[in-house]
Amino acid sequence: MASLTSADLHTSLRNPVFGSVEFLNEVMCRYPDAVSFAPGAPHPDSFADLDTNRYLQRFLEHAVTRLGHGPAGARRLLYEYGPSRGLINDLVADALCRDQGIDVTQDALVVTVGAQEGMLLALRALIRSADDLLAVADPCFVGIVGAAHLLCVGMVAVPESGHGVDLDALRAACRTARRAGKRVRACYVAPDFSNPSGNRMPLGCRKRLLQLADEEDFLILEDNAYGFTAAPGTELPMLKALDTTRRVVHIGTFAKVCFPGARVGYVVADQTIHGPNGEKRLLADELARLKTMVTVNTSPVCQALIGGMLLEHGGSLAETSRRRAALYRRNLAHLLDALDRGTESGLPPGIEWNRPEGGFFVRMRLPVPADEALLEISASVYGVLWTPMAPFHLAGGGEHTLRLSCSYLNPDQIETGVERLVAFLRAEIRP
Amino acid sequence: MASLTSADLHTSLRNPVFGSVEFLNEVMCRYPDAVSFAPGAPHPDSFADLDTNRYLQRFLEHAVTRLGHGPAGARRLLYEYGPSRGLINDLVADALCRDQGIDVTQDALVVTVGAQEGMLLALRALIRSADDLLAVADPCFVGIVGAAHLLCVGMVAVPESGHGVDLDALRAACRTARRAGKRVRACYVAPDFSNPSGNRMPLGCRKRLLQLADEEDFLILEDNAYGFTAAPGTELPMLKALDTTRRVVHIGTFAKVCFPGARVGYVVADQTIHGPNGEKRLLADELARLKTMVTVNTSPVCQALIGGMLLEHGGSLAETSRRRAALYRRNLAHLLDALDRGTESGLPPGIEWNRPEGGFFVRMRLPVPADEALLEISASVYGVLWTPMAPFHLAGGGEHTLRLSCSYLNPDQIETGVERLVAFLRAEIRP
Repeated sequence: MASLTSADLHTSLRNPVFGSVEFLNEVMCRYPDAVSFAPGAPHPDSFADLDTNRYLQRFLEHAVTRLGHGPAGARRLLYEYGPSRGLINDLVADALCRDQGIDVTQDALVVTVGAQEGMLLALRALIRSADDLLAVADPCFVGIVGAAHLLCVGMVAVPESGHGVDLDALRAACRTARRAGKRVRACYVAPDFSNPSGNRMPLGCRKRLLQLADEEDFLILEDNAYGFTAAPGTELPMLKALDTTRRVVHIGTFAKVCFPGARVGYVVADQTIHGPNGEKRLLADELARLKTMVTVNTSPVCQALIGGMLLEHGGSLAETSRRRAALYRRNLAHLLDALDRGTESGLPPGIEWNRPEGGFFVRMRLPVPADEALLEISASVYGVLWTPMAPFHLAGGGEHTLRLSCSYLNPDQIETGVERLVAFLRAEIRP
Repeated sequence: MASLTSADLHTSLRNPVFGSVEFLNEVMCRYPDAVSFAPGAPHPDSFADLDTNRYLQRFLEHAVTRLGHGPAGARRLLYEYGPSRGLINDLVADALCRDQGIDVTQDALVVTVGAQEGMLLALRALIRSADDLLAVADPCFVGIVGAAHLLCVGMVAVPESGHGVDLDALRAACRTARRAGKRVRACYVAPDFSNPSGNRMPLGCRKRLLQLADEEDFLILEDNAYGFTAAPGTELPMLKALDTTRRVVHIGTFAKVCFPGARVGYVVADQTIHGPNGEKRLLADELARLKTMVTVNTSPVCQALIGGMLLEHGGSLAETSRRRAALYRRNLAHLLDALDRGTESGLPPGIEWNRPEGGFFVRMRLPVPADEALLEISASVYGVLWTPMAPFHLAGGGEHTLRLSCSYLNPDQIETGVERLVAFLRAEIRP
């Protein structure tokens, strides 16, 4: 009988994040009546108006009237493999131009199986050897950390706060790496309402980060899943929209704007790659090559669903996501309001939280460790769950911080959850 | 401006296979009227009876009547993320048991974005460090070679022929590796009508390979995309069906059995993994963990399409694929017959081909190099395309061999293509 031990398997499988995710899932199973502020899942109401059949038909019409396919040929597009770079690149490029001011041709874009595959492809293309490092804003989304572990990519953590990523620390990291014969090849940031911190990078920091990338010669991996939740008129330009020197590889997803079950994301990679014989390609071409080794291509059915959904909304991301964005803003406002109301009569000292202007997440700091033991008490005695932040921190820290997600809850659940959370904080937190 | 050279990118992007695939695509574009025996694509007729809406409805019924969801909850399954291990694992496990005699619980199965993601996940989990090697049957499917390059996995080529993989060479490779302080951790084989060679591994070789895996302590990665094309009654048992000691990790795909656009495959990984504190998990659990870093989960819409299609055919893979299997057998028989008829009056000496009993591919040996220069002549003067085999060979060889694929052609195209091929061979091949 084949006998294997966990030590026989790749080290990425021993990433502590897995343990914490599994612990959370396990606690949620044990306390099914608890209100859980843990998952960053989409709200069920965000699916109410979805219609797979209608979107597919809408895309097929587009394929006939705009792409020049016959009806049978259009239908075949859904069933065949299709190009690795994608099938709806024109629609995505148009939407990015229209909504984000990101001026990019469809050739510079690869459609991926969610943002996650986009991160994996970008890392694999750009990190050549153990001498290339990835800087990450810390605390950091587990998806990029996981992808880096899977590819054995070395990481440098750079502190991030409500003021953005610490540019002095990033510059120092570049220089330290250079002195050691290495280089920071890319820096991962999620500038808009990042998961897990909810932080938004101020405009000044965005500009200075782009300048630093030029000065220290690194690329920026911009992950933007939550920017669409900003209130109309309060949006900040994406890094890619400010990128005049092609420093930014922009990773997007339709998981929140449309729905996660489509598993459709994209990478904008308009950097020119110079070949040994003077030939030029785009980084997007290289990512599409790598994609043939990972998933071959993104399901054309899924791409057609997203394409049809975009077309139904005039090709605009903002229109497509309007109702969902409003729902998430309502939930976030409700959470912050419930926290304010619930704590009017006071809380133990040393408890504070941030007030993000968008996204799915609020971060709360406690005067005691927000660890699994405390979560167990919160779940079993008070019926409320949250996510410990420490596993999101690469360089330590976050031990006293928890994350509250309100994305998939209804207002009454948020209300009940906050009541329970406040009762928990009042009774259990003794600084 | 960010300036990058191809030497700055990961070495997997310089895999020569990419160059040969791009050359083929480029030749096909330049000669649109040529008959191409190059792509191993599915036949357009195989899509004729597909109906995405009907399959989704069929799956939703199943989710309500068998899985206990309410109608709204069933519908939500399509739109949410869903579990990394998959949504239709029960249906796939049932089908494998019913059709292949593979006795596996749904827990031991992960649904993947095609077989390609399955290969990547299996390699990543099992290859721990540079000391772990992957043996591959040579010539070899480019997907496994590409995934190995992407993950920097060292490979050992083991010759494969119509008699199966060379077991003496495989044993020697294991022992050589061991003497160098390394180990052959897994051996990749495609036992049924492999791409590119069309070879089928005889039953005796299957049994001896399993025995060797026990003796030399390696796992077998079985890739089986083409087994369903065997004529009824002529099927050989899959390696996983013969696997009494859990040596086989079985990788399957619905790309040919159903349709490629779904991008749904699966891995059967029922090996027990012993943790440091006595806990036990299945290898499938570990693959699902890794999947969260690659694609998070396989689109539930796509899984529902495949699930609905299986349900429509009584849950049987054989029933689901019956019409498609007959179509591919017809095409293969037609190609072999046309080659026989077309060459009745003789060919230059030294030209021979194999006679696979299934699959998409026939291999032809020439007395001269079957290289890109010869392909250019074949395309430009004779209007017929084929695939040079050398890029499929890891350890050299195949320089005189070409691959003919007949999967996506109609009988009249096969007829015309063979006439052109024979004219080309008679005029251009001078041994």
